[in-house]
Amino acid sequence: MYKLIVLMLKYIQNYPYCMDRVRKDIENIGKIGKDPNGGVSRPALSEADIEARMYVMREMEEAGLKVYVDQGGNIIGIKEGEINEPFITTGSHIDTVLNGGIFDGVVGVVGGLETIRLINENKIKNKFPIALIVFTDEEGNSFTPFAGSKYFAGLLKKDELHTIEGKYENIKFGDALKRFFEKSKAKVIEKFPYSIKNHFELHVEQGPILEKEGKDIGIVLGIVGVLRIWANLEGKQSHAGTTPMNMRSDPSIPLAKTILKVREIAKKDIVGTLSYINVFPNVVNVIPGSIKLGIDIRSLDKTELEELEKQISKYIEDESEKEKVKANISSYIEDPVLCAEENIKTIEKSVNELGYSYIKMPSRAVHDSQIMSRITKIGMIFVPSKNGISHAPDEWTDWNYIYKGVNVLYNTLKIITEAKNNKL
Amino acid sequence: MYKLIVLMLKYIQNYPYCMDRVRKDIENIGKIGKDPNGGVSRPALSEADIEARMYVMREMEEAGLKVYVDQGGNIIGIKEGEINEPFITTGSHIDTVLNGGIFDGVVGVVGGLETIRLINENKIKNKFPIALIVFTDEEGNSFTPFAGSKYFAGLLKKDELHTIEGKYENIKFGDALKRFFEKSKAKVIEKFPYSIKNHFELHVEQGPILEKEGKDIGIVLGIVGVLRIWANLEGKQSHAGTTPMNMRSDPSIPLAKTILKVREIAKKDIVGTLSYINVFPNVVNVIPGSIKLGIDIRSLDKTELEELEKQISKYIEDESEKEKVKANISSYIEDPVLCAEENIKTIEKSVNELGYSYIKMPSRAVHDSQIMSRITKIGMIFVPSKNGISHAPDEWTDWNYIYKGVNVLYNTLKIITEAKNNKL
Repeated sequence: MYKLIVLMLKYIQNYPYCMDRVRKDIENIGKIGKDPNGGVSRPALSEADIEARMYVMREMEEAGLKVYVDQGGNIIGIKEGEINEPFITTGSHIDTVLNGGIFDGVVGVVGGLETIRLINENKIKNKFPIALIVFTDEEGNSFTPFAGSKYFAGLLKKDELHTIEGKYENIKFGDALKRFFEKSKAKVIEKFPYSIKNHFELHVEQGPILEKEGKDIGIVLGIVGVLRIWANLEGKQSHAGTTPMNMRSDPSIPLAKTILKVREIAKKDIVGTLSYINVFPNVVNVIPGSIKLGIDIRSLDKTELEELEKQISKYIEDESEKEKVKANISSYIEDPVLCAEENIKTIEKSVNELGYSYIKMPSRAVHDSQIMSRITKIGMIFVPSKNGISHAPDEWTDWNYIYKGVNVLYNTLKIITEAKNNKL
Repeated sequence: MYKLIVLMLKYIQNYPYCMDRVRKDIENIGKIGKDPNGGVSRPALSEADIEARMYVMREMEEAGLKVYVDQGGNIIGIKEGEINEPFITTGSHIDTVLNGGIFDGVVGVVGGLETIRLINENKIKNKFPIALIVFTDEEGNSFTPFAGSKYFAGLLKKDELHTIEGKYENIKFGDALKRFFEKSKAKVIEKFPYSIKNHFELHVEQGPILEKEGKDIGIVLGIVGVLRIWANLEGKQSHAGTTPMNMRSDPSIPLAKTILKVREIAKKDIVGTLSYINVFPNVVNVIPGSIKLGIDIRSLDKTELEELEKQISKYIEDESEKEKVKANISSYIEDPVLCAEENIKTIEKSVNELGYSYIKMPSRAVHDSQIMSRITKIGMIFVPSKNGISHAPDEWTDWNYIYKGVNVLYNTLKIITEAKNNKL
C-alpha cells in the first residue's frame, strides 16, 4: 500500500499537465501589474490587484470552489467536506511590494488552487472542509500590513479597517473594497464563520539558506520574533581639529562598539543588524553632536530576545557613559510565533513520502500565517529563493522547486483531510 | 633697565584707556552684520563686511597709518620705519562664518590696530616698517577660503580670483571688489610690493586647551597638517531578517572597526575623527549596500600623517576584505606649516617680560598665517576660547585675555621692530 502511494505520488510529481497549470497561473498573474521600472507592482485593491483577484476567483470557481469575499477583502474558496467543521485552510497573498517579484505570496495561492484541482482529479474524499484564502494587503503597501489576515483573525474590526487611508492611492480601505466588490460581482460575506483545525501556507523562502544547503523544502519551525532597539546618542558637537581627544563626547565611539556587539551576539539561530545610522551634522571636520541608530535582532526564542533587549541596552548605556555621551534608548519586541508541532510532523511525513530533501528552519520574514496563529495551528512550507533575493524584480525560484513545494502542500492536505486517514 | 621695562609694561597692561579701545572696537565691529538667527554673519565683501572694513580703515587712518587696498581686497595699513624694507607685518581677517562669533579674526585686526596706537603713544621708534593687513574671505563663505592671503602670497592670480563666482551672493569676486572700492573710496594698489621679514597673527584659540590648562597665552608651534581619508565601502544589500550572518557583506563592520582604529591612533599630538557616515539605504531591516565614510586626522608632523595615511588605508582594506566588502579609498594631505623658531623665541621673550603664563601648542584650526608662511616667517599668538567654542554665536574670550593677547602682540612687535633693539 505504502509503495503504491509512493509510486502514485512520483507519477503526480512528474505529471507535466498539472504542473504546467501552476506555471501558467504564476506567469499569468505575474503579467498583471508589470511595472515599467521593472518587476511587478500590485498593491492591494489597486486596479492591478483587482484584475489578479478576478483571475484567481475565476480559477477557484473552475476548480469547483464556492467563492466568497469577506469585509476584509479576503477571497475565500470553499470545498465542502464530509463534516461541516472544523476547516483545514491554506492560502497566502497576491498583493506585491512596488517593483516586486512574481513568486512572493502567489506561490501559496496558486499552490493551494492546484492542491484543490489535484484533490478533485484524484477523487480524494476529504473529511474536513477546505478553504483556500487569498489575504488582503499582506505587504501593507496600500493600507496596513496584514490588513486581511488581521480582519480574518479578529485583530482588526471592520470599522477600523474600512476607515484606513490609502498610502498607494488616496482612497479609504472601505471605498477601495467597494470598488472591488462591484467590479468582481463577488458574493460578499461579513466574516468566515467556521472554526479552523489547521492552516498551511506554502511560500518562497525569501532568504538563501535552502539554496546554500542544497535542499528542496524548508519545514518552518516558526516565524522569528523581532527585537528593535532605537538609540539616540547625544554627545558634544565640536571642531574635529581643535578638540583634544580627552575632551570629546563623540557618539561615534559607542556607535562603533554597538555595531560590533550586535555582530558578536548574533549566532546560528539569531541574526542581528545595525543598519540605520543618522549622524548630525555629518560633516567631516565636526565631531557629531548626535547619532541615531537602529538595531534589528531576530530569534524564534522570546526569552532570548528579552535577554538581548536588556543586555544590548545596558551595553549602549555603559559605552556611552564612558564617552560622556547621553543615550536615549527605546525598544520593543514583536513576539515570535511557533508552528504547531503536529503540523510540522504532518509536513515532514508528507515530504518523506515524496522523497524530497528538506531542513527544518525558522522563517525570518513575516507572513499571514503568523496572524492566523492567533486562531488556529499553523504550518509553513518553504521552497528555495535563488540567491536569497525577494521583494525585487529578480526574485526567482526554479520551476522544479515550485512543483515540489506544491506537491508537498497537496500531500500534506491530503494526509490531514483524507477521510480514510481521519476516520469518521 | 629691565625692571623699568617690566614696570612700564605692567602699567600699560593695566592702563584702562587703551584697553577700553580694544573692547570698543571689537564690540563695534561685532554689531555689524548681526544675524537675526543669532551671532554675526559677515561674509567677505558683503554689505556688512564692507561696512566693517570701512570702520577699520577709518581707525587705521586715525592711528596714522597710510591705508591701501590691493586687488585681492586686502586692506593694508602702513607705518613707515627707519628703513624702507623689509616689513614686519601683522593682521588677520574680519569676515565671519554665518552665525559666527565676534572674536574670530577680529581680535587679530583690532589687536594690530591697538599695537600701532601703543607704538605711537609710547613713541617707539621702529626700524622696520610695519604693515597691518586685513585679509579677504579667510572663512571662504563668500568666494574661496584664504582668497585674500592667497592673492597676497601670489598663490592666486588676479584674473583667477576676480572671476570666482560668489557663494553667498550671486556676484563675481571682481564685481564685489569694485563695489567695495567705490563705496570706500580706497587707494587701490595692485599688490603689496615689499619684502616681509616676519609676520605675526593674534587669534583666539578656537579650542579648549588654554582654558583647560589655565594659561593666558598659547605660543603657536605651527598649524597642523590635515589628512583626509574618504572610503566608499560596497557590501551586498540584503534583508536583515533572512540573510544568515555568515552570508553577509555588511559594510557597517569595517566602518565600526575603522571608527575605533582612528580613536586608537589619536595620541597627544594627533587628533583623529571619523564623523562623516552615509549609509545606503539606511533602513533598519536592510543590511546596507554601501557606506561612505570620511576621516579627519591632524598633526604637526608630516611624516606621521604620511605614515597614518598608509596604515589606515590598509586597515580599511583588510577589514573590508574580511567582510567581503569592496573598499574604494581616496585620501590627501594638506601639509602642516611650522612657525619660525625665531618668531616663537621672540613671542616667548615678549610673554616672559609681561609675566603671563603660557604653553607652546599647535594650532589645529587653519589661519591666514599658513598662507603667509609661503613668503615670510610666521608667528602666532593664541588667547583662550571659553569652552573651546568658535564659529558659533556663543564664541567668547574674556576681555582680560584679550588685553593680554594684545599686549603680547604689541610687545612682540616692539621687540622685533624697535630701533634700539635692531641697531642701524
